[in-house]
Amino acid sequence: MAPDELRLSGWMEANRSRITATLLDWLRIPSISAHSDHAADVRRSADLCASLMVESGLEHVAILHTPGAPAVYGEWLHAGPVAPTVLVYGHHDVQPVDPIDEWTSPPFDPVIVNGECRARGAIDDKGQVLYEIEAVRGLLEVDGTIPVNLKFLIEGEEEIGSPHFESLLRDEATRLRCDAIVVSDTGMWAPSFPSTCVGMRGLIGYDLHIRTADADLHSGVFGGAVANSTHVLARIVAALHDDEGRVRIPGFYDQVRPIDDLERASLGALPFADFLFQELAGSRRLEGESGHGTLERVGYRPTAEVTGISSGYTGEGIKTIVAAEGRAKLTFRLVPDQQPDVIDRCVREWLASTIPEGIEFSLDAEGAVAPFLTPTDHPAMGALCRAIERVWGVAPLFTREGGSGPEETLGRVLDAPLLFLGVGLPGDRIHAPNERMVMDQFWKGLLAAGELWHELAAISFDGPSSERST
Amino acid sequence: MAPDELRLSGWMEANRSRITATLLDWLRIPSISAHSDHAADVRRSADLCASLMVESGLEHVAILHTPGAPAVYGEWLHAGPVAPTVLVYGHHDVQPVDPIDEWTSPPFDPVIVNGECRARGAIDDKGQVLYEIEAVRGLLEVDGTIPVNLKFLIEGEEEIGSPHFESLLRDEATRLRCDAIVVSDTGMWAPSFPSTCVGMRGLIGYDLHIRTADADLHSGVFGGAVANSTHVLARIVAALHDDEGRVRIPGFYDQVRPIDDLERASLGALPFADFLFQELAGSRRLEGESGHGTLERVGYRPTAEVTGISSGYTGEGIKTIVAAEGRAKLTFRLVPDQQPDVIDRCVREWLASTIPEGIEFSLDAEGAVAPFLTPTDHPAMGALCRAIERVWGVAPLFTREGGSGPEETLGRVLDAPLLFLGVGLPGDRIHAPNERMVMDQFWKGLLAAGELWHELAAISFDGPSSERST
Repeated sequence: MAPDELRLSGWMEANRSRITATLLDWLRIPSISAHSDHAADVRRSADLCASLMVESGLEHVAILHTPGAPAVYGEWLHAGPVAPTVLVYGHHDVQPVDPIDEWTSPPFDPVIVNGECRARGAIDDKGQVLYEIEAVRGLLEVDGTIPVNLKFLIEGEEEIGSPHFESLLRDEATRLRCDAIVVSDTGMWAPSFPSTCVGMRGLIGYDLHIRTADADLHSGVFGGAVANSTHVLARIVAALHDDEGRVRIPGFYDQVRPIDDLERASLGALPFADFLFQELAGSRRLEGESGHGTLERVGYRPTAEVTGISSGYTGEGIKTIVAAEGRAKLTFRLVPDQQPDVIDRCVREWLASTIPEGIEFSLDAEGAVAPFLTPTDHPAMGALCRAIERVWGVAPLFTREGGSGPEETLGRVLDAPLLFLGVGLPGDRIHAPNERMVMDQFWKGLLAAGELWHELAAISFDGPSSERST
Repeated sequence: MAPDELRLSGWMEANRSRITATLLDWLRIPSISAHSDHAADVRRSADLCASLMVESGLEHVAILHTPGAPAVYGEWLHAGPVAPTVLVYGHHDVQPVDPIDEWTSPPFDPVIVNGECRARGAIDDKGQVLYEIEAVRGLLEVDGTIPVNLKFLIEGEEEIGSPHFESLLRDEATRLRCDAIVVSDTGMWAPSFPSTCVGMRGLIGYDLHIRTADADLHSGVFGGAVANSTHVLARIVAALHDDEGRVRIPGFYDQVRPIDDLERASLGALPFADFLFQELAGSRRLEGESGHGTLERVGYRPTAEVTGISSGYTGEGIKTIVAAEGRAKLTFRLVPDQQPDVIDRCVREWLASTIPEGIEFSLDAEGAVAPFLTPTDHPAMGALCRAIERVWGVAPLFTREGGSGPEETLGRVLDAPLLFLGVGLPGDRIHAPNERMVMDQFWKGLLAAGELWHELAAISFDGPSSERST
């Protein structure tokens, strides 16, 4: 281990009980962003986060107000004009706790049992924000300095889809300028198989509405001779995939970037079993694009998922109608380098050619998120790998996530590479009852945060977003 | 014209204003069976119907109580031991009136304008019951006798699907025994193209429920690798028909009886245009089984219609889930000689072989109605044709109805041929605002009722259900 890490490690040992107590204090605040009656709790959580930042040595700490819940900002910009600027992202809001009766201990009465901290928000994401803040404090107390310029942006609306995040980023773009973004809100495969996410899928979604008649018709009088919206919709949905599970929209796969050798090697090395994945999903059946395994299907391949369909009557009993209208929610998960606007054109052309003549339809876009990828050969990725290997003892494998949150927005608006340092584990039950954080992972996260800043200080960044303030 | 008809015609002319006033009185009673706050009105309607029967000369008039709305019974059994017994069926309840603001005059304030009686229930079915009752009165006043034994059964729950009708028929089977049933509740093509229905399609319906996972899954995490209930359901529905619109269930068409020559000739002679049918339906597109025209598709061919489908989320916005369950309402319209239990087996076998391995499903039957057909060469059908030709001046064409109401139950439980003498016209707006009856059709109906009884008296009936009382 490097001397810096050794020194931070010693500081960490000396501060264990204080840090643990701080963690539990923060976890006691029920900062549920989805429930408006917890708005004051979310503000309290932001205030506590700000206090922790100030205590750590971060400067210009500020509550960044939005039309919704507040974010927290802090910075330390004394690394010198040559050092890169790193932005640390996390969030201080948490998921709701329902079903409450499945918790073995109250979600906002955190306990540490068998080396696990159990509470809502333990791993998602207060624990992962705290080790970043404490790494700042540790390095400043031990070394009196940090090798990179640091900015912290801790959001308060991540669990409700970050509705005001992009406008916040745009408003604060100057203050948030950076060379790399460290996302501290994800997980790894296992302590013995540390991993880091290099890409996330994008998403475009649509509300498809079709109309086959002015009103529902009597199936005795008209059934068999008029278009039935239920049938028309079902045929559209069924036509989305061929028998091999491939999306049949012409052009859909044209921009998909092949998986590179390093990622391919990681895919083969990850300990993964279909039956365990199926068990985790509680799914009756695995199915997908042929020629690709489950891991590829969920992270590396674009998909079409119809997330809802409704037409006609499905209540009690039988209504003898020919349904006149229906809707389906079409979503497409995109992978690098698929561009949402190109896929949008493909979807619209396919639909126009698939819907039978005469049928009225409308296709309303419900937003688009681009996929992103931090290439495995990016210098910052090398720095992240070295930091992880130094703490966990094993070089990390590369993974991808099937969906994306605000990370894509961060990378796009701030125009900087995304690095995922996350200590969550598959069994952490995020968004579910009995969320936990394995404390050993937490302490490793604190050390790795410091390691990563050292590693990032040692590489060279190009590009206009570098900040060289003192 | 036969002397009897001339004499009835003279009586009718002399009684026009009284009969018209009676019609309007009955139409003023809002006997809406679907609305429980009109239950007293339905009972008042039954009482008035009973009074009219008594005044006409029918005997043993009785209100037949059911767990719901009452039916009315009356009989005249003095035609002698050789004469056949004819049961006349109709109903005295009416449809609701919504949307009320589309009526040009109040639905229960009947008016006669331009030779049309406008009111809820005018043609469906009080008008068509009244001309049968008045035909009894006319014949008894003119001739002092009727050539057949008559029984009347006027239901009070037809517009809500006749929920207690079959048990009423079974309870009263002895009293209701007959050689033929005259259904006075349908229509004809046009005054210049009189027609009679010879068959109605049956129906079997199912509630199909499928489950692909314990709960909805996050489409970012699982999408692309697990079965999606929306996709599975859509594929089942899409698989019901081939590209030619034929139902793909093996065995589905095996029992379909070919259309006989007389029906085939009627099909060709009926004045029918697809574009008018489409306009009437308000449909964006006609489609169906290839090799068969629209009229065949709606009356003579069996169909599969999925009357509803739902899975996943179709509310506002996009929920990024892989849906875990869904349901569809499968219905099949059956034609002679398809047997519901045989089709049921075919459906279940097809479904079991179509649903992918692992997917949980349940298929719950929602009731079955057999199709029926009164053969065009049945002697009673000849009698009906002669009666219609005598009054309208043209022999009727044969048609079929796409759906069935209580008629199938009547024919099956009472084991007697069904004859449809109906004077409704396509523009009568049954079940809709501004329902009407063309008065000229009403008066022709009165004469045709009498003609039909004369014609039925002249033919011979076989079978165990004949009744020879005096």
